[in-house]
Amino acid sequence: MLGSLPSFARLEAELGKLPGVGRKTAARLAFHLLRTSEQDVEALAAALLEMRRKVGFCQRCFHIAETALCQTCSNVNRESQRLCVVQEPQDLLAIERSHSYAGLYHVLHGALSPLDGIGPDDLKIPQLLRRLDQEPIEEIILATNFTVEGEATALYLANICRDKKIKVTRLAHGIPSGSDLEYIDAGTVQQAVAGRREF
Amino acid sequence: MLGSLPSFARLEAELGKLPGVGRKTAARLAFHLLRTSEQDVEALAAALLEMRRKVGFCQRCFHIAETALCQTCSNVNRESQRLCVVQEPQDLLAIERSHSYAGLYHVLHGALSPLDGIGPDDLKIPQLLRRLDQEPIEEIILATNFTVEGEATALYLANICRDKKIKVTRLAHGIPSGSDLEYIDAGTVQQAVAGRREF
Repeated sequence: MLGSLPSFARLEAELGKLPGVGRKTAARLAFHLLRTSEQDVEALAAALLEMRRKVGFCQRCFHIAETALCQTCSNVNRESQRLCVVQEPQDLLAIERSHSYAGLYHVLHGALSPLDGIGPDDLKIPQLLRRLDQEPIEEIILATNFTVEGEATALYLANICRDKKIKVTRLAHGIPSGSDLEYIDAGTVQQAVAGRREF
Repeated sequence: MLGSLPSFARLEAELGKLPGVGRKTAARLAFHLLRTSEQDVEALAAALLEMRRKVGFCQRCFHIAETALCQTCSNVNRESQRLCVVQEPQDLLAIERSHSYAGLYHVLHGALSPLDGIGPDDLKIPQLLRRLDQEPIEEIILATNFTVEGEATALYLANICRDKKIKVTRLAHGIPSGSDLEYIDAGTVQQAVAGRREF
């Protein structure tokens, strides 16, 4: 039935390429856009093109940026002796939202995963090592995810940093705020017990 | 943190206007699009603009169409004495997918809902009444949804059609294929019992 509607079918196909958007969601979005004002659809299309054209990555930390250096890297008030290593720009944003850190960042754009063929050179690890040599960094905070890949990446980086005599820390691993012990997985409880501290 | 990224924030805001896309999904989609090739983002933007420019509604049945008449209305092999009334273009597509109907359609673009201030003139009902007078229609199949609004709309249209001496039918209301009686709501079971037929 959509054979006579090539432009509708094409939009459905393009929307269906987005993550988490299946055939039915793509159809729902396309029908929604059909009823949206032409002006709003143009605004969405323009926003897509503008974002893709303007946003790139910071030359220093590889966070997303519209300029050569991102907002954090170009802020002279940040503590330049501390460097927090995260997997993705989203992780950096999560830490910034917590207002708990005033140092610099380095975004790896992934985690080591030998099974998927992802080694250090597929991430921003060579660039991180250059920064460790060139910048006055005293502490590396490993904030990779608490997954197998994230832990492996943290371990890999910790070994390198120790060789360079840089202090290495890892985000605390334990029970999240507002949670009920009963529903926390055994692995997390185990980490929380092992990492308990004086109260 | 996105203060320094106006084009990224703008795309997030535009994506967040889509149905079912909240703040987090909008961010996820924007990050995905950041890593998508420029060519693919351009294809999506072009598809959006092209669809909105080309796709409109059929002059006769109000299904979506890129031409004055939709595929069904311009197909001379369809049975012009039967007219199936649906709420939305998606409903028409669902009936077409069932390959069980060869007549014409009329899309109301909604259902009567006095509480929301939606009366007959807010739907394509005046246009339907004109078709009933002008076209050689012998049977109206009411395929509005089995919701309060859909049922009210069906009742409203049935009364008009009976006055015009046109045969009125309604889609069968009962247990869906592949379902277990145990899990069917009481209202549906009640309708299925009332509407039972000889086997």
